Amino acid sequence: MQNFEFSLPTKVYFGKNKITNIKNHLKDYNKILITYGGGSVKKFGIMDDVKKVLKNNDIDYEEFGGIQSNPKIKNVRKGIDFIKKNEIDFILAVGGGSVIDSSKAMACGVYSENDVWDYFTGKEEIKKAIPMGVVLTLAATGSEMNINSVLINEKTKQKMAIHSKHVLPKFAVLDPTYTMSVPPYYTACGVSDIMAHTFEQYFSWNKEAEVSDRLSESILDVCIKNGPIAYENGEDYIARSNLLWSSTLALNGLLSLGKQTDWASHKIAHELSAHYGIAHGATLSIIFPAWMEYVLTEKTRWKFDQFGRNVWGVEGKNEDVAEQSIALLRDFFESMDLPIYLEDVDVSDKKFEIMAKNIEEVYGEIGNFKKLNYKDIIKIYKIAHKR
Amino acid sequence: MQNFEFSLPTKVYFGKNKITNIKNHLKDYNKILITYGGGSVKKFGIMDDVKKVLKNNDIDYEEFGGIQSNPKIKNVRKGIDFIKKNEIDFILAVGGGSVIDSSKAMACGVYSENDVWDYFTGKEEIKKAIPMGVVLTLAATGSEMNINSVLINEKTKQKMAIHSKHVLPKFAVLDPTYTMSVPPYYTACGVSDIMAHTFEQYFSWNKEAEVSDRLSESILDVCIKNGPIAYENGEDYIARSNLLWSSTLALNGLLSLGKQTDWASHKIAHELSAHYGIAHGATLSIIFPAWMEYVLTEKTRWKFDQFGRNVWGVEGKNEDVAEQSIALLRDFFESMDLPIYLEDVDVSDKKFEIMAKNIEEVYGEIGNFKKLNYKDIIKIYKIAHKR
Repeated sequence: MQNFEFSLPTKVYFGKNKITNIKNHLKDYNKILITYGGGSVKKFGIMDDVKKVLKNNDIDYEEFGGIQSNPKIKNVRKGIDFIKKNEIDFILAVGGGSVIDSSKAMACGVYSENDVWDYFTGKEEIKKAIPMGVVLTLAATGSEMNINSVLINEKTKQKMAIHSKHVLPKFAVLDPTYTMSVPPYYTACGVSDIMAHTFEQYFSWNKEAEVSDRLSESILDVCIKNGPIAYENGEDYIARSNLLWSSTLALNGLLSLGKQTDWASHKIAHELSAHYGIAHGATLSIIFPAWMEYVLTEKTRWKFDQFGRNVWGVEGKNEDVAEQSIALLRDFFESMDLPIYLEDVDVSDKKFEIMAKNIEEVYGEIGNFKKLNYKDIIKIYKIAHKR
Repeated sequence: MQNFEFSLPTKVYFGKNKITNIKNHLKDYNKILITYGGGSVKKFGIMDDVKKVLKNNDIDYEEFGGIQSNPKIKNVRKGIDFIKKNEIDFILAVGGGSVIDSSKAMACGVYSENDVWDYFTGKEEIKKAIPMGVVLTLAATGSEMNINSVLINEKTKQKMAIHSKHVLPKFAVLDPTYTMSVPPYYTACGVSDIMAHTFEQYFSWNKEAEVSDRLSESILDVCIKNGPIAYENGEDYIARSNLLWSSTLALNGLLSLGKQTDWASHKIAHELSAHYGIAHGATLSIIFPAWMEYVLTEKTRWKFDQFGRNVWGVEGKNEDVAEQSIALLRDFFESMDLPIYLEDVDVSDKKFEIMAKNIEEVYGEIGNFKKLNYKDIIKIYKIAHKR
């Protein structure tokens, strides 16, 4: 097992009516900025709950809404200006991954010397950030309890990430009822996202980190059982709560401890969001099975065998457990009406070279389970193209 | 799923040579107290590693050794006096559960108005404590990343616990090589302890907290695979590291999230330590299977069925999966030469009533999976008595 360091200082408040706990974290600040996306947090009463706590405790706040999915750096810059003008000293992100990631970028971007995107390209180092908290409304991102933020630069057509302890949320309210209004398609996208986060950590050469592998299989099992239930019936509290807690555990660091992670598929998928605006979870349900097909060789078969037996319950001495596991994954995604090929979302092969080039320019080779270069990435897009 | 709150602020440093990281946590204190048990931490070079870091960083320290297993409140009182006299402002516990739990009691006991045992009986509330850190030398307790401390009062023959955020360690160094010198019997006791901690959280009426259940099964799986390897070959780094990380995860709160826990078996087992001085892990390998036999009814069979299938891999439609799972557990403990009946450790039925009375007086009924009274406890001791 590889050496590691680990802690989870973010305070999680999980369950119905846990929103009232935010008051203890906010009382000492001058002015809170509530960040949010579209109107759904207002429509479904979540914003009312938040504001009620703030008002009841005489906590001053401003609002910054309109953060879109696949969040854009341009909008973050607007947020940074707003924060500076209004002397905001705490950000309360009410939403899913896009709102949280945008808020993280705003929180540190306030202190950037030149421009916040410089943090994403690595030109500038993040040294501090305004503190922030989260009220989560979608089981997917994991951003509520980690140091990551992913944004799109619409000019350069890049989707890139920062990783800094300074943007780790102080607290996260995880109320499963706040995720009940998520429509079926986005519920399915969330499940795909949770599973993809797990895959990026699960598919690794390291056989020694057995704890992390078993925990990853646990998260996948919970997704496979509860995903379709929440997809069919959004009001199912048990399914919603299991998915919600899985989403946080899938990307708070726990699953990668003691091993090397991959993260090639996310980079390949990010291009599809950047170029075509496809929902993150849908890019992953397309790319991950294709990636698996491509990296499956006699050398990597052991891992897919483990995946098939421990996650999908494939039994017996079949030689094609690996192939079965990939087919079962596609079937699973398809059962929740997620796209599993690019043709399902009307994406042609026109930009395969541009997207692969983009990745190569930024990262060079990607992945660890199998190192992938420009040519490999093209091949994966081709596998993902059509049936 | 039940509501919960969760965070893990303790910083874990896991792996070889991670000891050097303690310097960052200790630099700002006046004087560190290194607490430890017998001579093994000195014999096997662990204390040398610790002192080297302190000396290289000009960190002043004192030593307080001789903490025994099944730690006694009397010795803790001595430690408190020592701390007061020497103006100690940070405790560095180098050892296993006994050393950590004693150190926690010293850390808060310094501030007790009357006597530290009052915290354990609930007469006084813990309001603050000296900060502490841990260098762990045994995979078992979980105390390195939680708020608990369990101590024995040799006068009253009680083994009781405190739970306070004030005694949560600031950091924990988990170096698997530091656990390699643990002899086979105590390695097995550690495995029994980790599994027992997991059982106390796993056996619950709550069927909804699927994440916690799957994670618990993961920890049990890792113990079942790696326990016998470490028992046979103490130098096996992979087995030692998987057990070590399991031990921390088994009792840092993660496995109990969203559900009710039991903790009856620990109370029943604690009496055996208090009265006979039997190693904690050995009391659990005796009591847990007996408790399982006693609480297994047609109403609770579903849980044992889950246990048998998901943990022990019992297949088919057998009606006795539950009974098989208990038999497999005893076989497993016995394979590592752990006692599985009281007769194995030469304990007669002489004190069954006294011990059950003790428990009744302190707690009334115990357990949640099945509520147990005085008569139930006697019956469990009887099942545990002999083959």
